[in-house]
Amino acid sequence: MEPSTPRAQRARRMADMLRQQITSGAFPSGLLPGERELGARFGATRNAVREALGLLRSEGLVVRRQGVGTVVATAKYDHELDRLSGLAEALTGHGTITNEVRAAHLVTEVPEAVTERLELPPSADAVYIERLRSSDGVPLSLDTTYLVADIGLPLLECDLTGRDIFALIEETTGSLLGSAEVSVHAVTADPGSAALLRIPTGAAMFAIERLTRLEDGRAVDVESLRIRADRLTLTATLHRQG
Amino acid sequence: MEPSTPRAQRARRMADMLRQQITSGAFPSGLLPGERELGARFGATRNAVREALGLLRSEGLVVRRQGVGTVVATAKYDHELDRLSGLAEALTGHGTITNEVRAAHLVTEVPEAVTERLELPPSADAVYIERLRSSDGVPLSLDTTYLVADIGLPLLECDLTGRDIFALIEETTGSLLGSAEVSVHAVTADPGSAALLRIPTGAAMFAIERLTRLEDGRAVDVESLRIRADRLTLTATLHRQG
Repeated sequence: MEPSTPRAQRARRMADMLRQQITSGAFPSGLLPGERELGARFGATRNAVREALGLLRSEGLVVRRQGVGTVVATAKYDHELDRLSGLAEALTGHGTITNEVRAAHLVTEVPEAVTERLELPPSADAVYIERLRSSDGVPLSLDTTYLVADIGLPLLECDLTGRDIFALIEETTGSLLGSAEVSVHAVTADPGSAALLRIPTGAAMFAIERLTRLEDGRAVDVESLRIRADRLTLTATLHRQG
Repeated sequence: MEPSTPRAQRARRMADMLRQQITSGAFPSGLLPGERELGARFGATRNAVREALGLLRSEGLVVRRQGVGTVVATAKYDHELDRLSGLAEALTGHGTITNEVRAAHLVTEVPEAVTERLELPPSADAVYIERLRSSDGVPLSLDTTYLVADIGLPLLECDLTGRDIFALIEETTGSLLGSAEVSVHAVTADPGSAALLRIPTGAAMFAIERLTRLEDGRAVDVESLRIRADRLTLTATLHRQG
């Protein structure tokens, strides 16, 4: 690399490249190469290597294990944004998703912001579901969902502990979902979310808002997802032609 | 809302809904309604309203202005993930993007991680470009780019201060880009990135890795983008059918 660049910048670049390699599965054993080999591979000094590993430790991506070296802290899963899918669908083959159902009931006084978003009259009821979703016992996502009442009520009789809401909607209505409008924010974890997701307060989280529609365009489900950023990467293949 | 839920959860839900309204432009003047009106609109107590506003202040989305109330801190722009586009293209109509070119030159000793990612032989040269991108003078994104040499060298003669790399590649090669593989991470800002982007250390940032290919599938450009999460939202419309 260019000698003119300060070490911190080289360390950041190396951290970026190493993050990409780690999350794309370049180290299947979980053990990273030693500092000397990493330095050779990334054209970085020993100090820059240490600084880069420090950045990735502070993200929660790797940990230093006494007598072993630097290891990947926890598998980071890809959630593809190329298609509308629920968490369990997106992570098929990567552990079992289970949900702690923290709330699931009809709400008769629905906030105006929710009825507006769901394109309902102000007096409409809605079904509220809140779930803490874990993969192999480790928390991944805190999801709160408001559903239009006629779609949501049958879900209260379904397996909310084991299933994606999307799959349940399609099974109970007998029709496919159409599309969703998704907004992805990055935020730091407030103490309450941090405690539930078992991450440090101030750790990075995705905050995702998703409004889902049936094939006929009807809005049925507005969700807030708080996702552990140390466990999930959002991926997409984008095309230049629209 | 359900009285059984603790206030912190109600405050988080309110913060999520209010974030969505703010970023979708519900308050064009920038001034939020007063606490009483917000409470009525979101079915929340005064204390929950205050807690929700505190969460959004800690994200840098809103600030409290003495004698005025709570105002939107800075416009948050949508960067659509539905199509491969550069920052200036994505933000067309939302202020002028200018770039501080921090590095732009040929690199003869390219890290192995980069040549592998660009599908080049280990001995290949590459062009390195590093830019701090601002919208109307406020930093938005710190972008580092490695380009294959034959595509990158002509760009060194181009207007790197004012233009997107994507547009410049298409102009100098005379052919369109094809697609890009994008990975989106949420991380907290290290002191160096924070200083450049003028955000607090520890603030949330997007860290995006993007590998771009020409229409014929050739990898030409691998980028690391560090984006201020208080200024940019990633949005997409996802479809259920693949």
